Amino acid sequence: MSEGVEWALHSCLNLSWLPIGQAVPAAKLAEFYSLPAAYLNKQLQALARAGIVSSTSGPRGGFQLARSPERITLLDVVVAIEGAEEAFRCDQLLKRGPGADPAADYRESCLVSQAMRRADLAWRGELAGQTLADLKARVERHYPATPGNTVNRFAALRA
Amino acid sequence: MSEGVEWALHSCLNLSWLPIGQAVPAAKLAEFYSLPAAYLNKQLQALARAGIVSSTSGPRGGFQLARSPERITLLDVVVAIEGAEEAFRCDQLLKRGPGADPAADYRESCLVSQAMRRADLAWRGELAGQTLADLKARVERHYPATPGNTVNRFAALRA
Repeated sequence: MSEGVEWALHSCLNLSWLPIGQAVPAAKLAEFYSLPAAYLNKQLQALARAGIVSSTSGPRGGFQLARSPERITLLDVVVAIEGAEEAFRCDQLLKRGPGADPAADYRESCLVSQAMRRADLAWRGELAGQTLADLKARVERHYPATPGNTVNRFAALRA
Repeated sequence: MSEGVEWALHSCLNLSWLPIGQAVPAAKLAEFYSLPAAYLNKQLQALARAGIVSSTSGPRGGFQLARSPERITLLDVVVAIEGAEEAFRCDQLLKRGPGADPAADYRESCLVSQAMRRADLAWRGELAGQTLADLKARVERHYPATPGNTVNRFAALRA
């Protein structure tokens, strides 16, 4: 998994602490963690394509969450950045084995494939069961100063 | 995840159907699915280093399971091939943020990191909860001809 997932999750979380309607330029989001702006911008574009953030142009333009944190799961963010493909990609090895059925879709019928898919589903289920709002609430409980610090930091950045 | 995981799982399964003590040369294991022998050999060496298969040399040498299928989990095989690293590698982004504690290990304290780790644990738990014996039994239930076909195929291969 690329570092883009970590960047995207933290950026979404930071955006969740800003007043609704306040957009942040990509350069500021990058500056927050001293990230390379061009590369973070790619992740932000991917989040925008997935409908997780929206962007506006103009002097007060930038990125903001496109929907409420209750309606963004961690899986949404991961899939936006990494794609929906499973970690285990079944190449249908059984097609190359003895007595293979050329018409079979071994991604469905192969029990190795099914076992690996079950693990993938457990992973997805865990990420789909946590929203950005859950994460936000957890951070606020453990680190109460974070929301205020985040807002202040964005205000202080000149990027 | 590399195709090596798929190859390794199917190869271990095939080995599980052979009489105990019967070793199969890497070339035959590769020939079974028309795989590139040198590359499969790399996966077999990784399985051997993890104590999942053992190899013997000589005219009747080759690979066999090093322990009973009840004592080999799918996670053992995946980790042998892919390593134990988590899919999400926390780069401790918070170290680069405002008010970072240089002494903190954010891989532990960061709640984004924890959320991603929870998903990884769900994935690992699912794979650790399935043994090669479970998989073997499931295949035998669904495809009763497979064990016999596998033994015959190995006997017929000249590699």
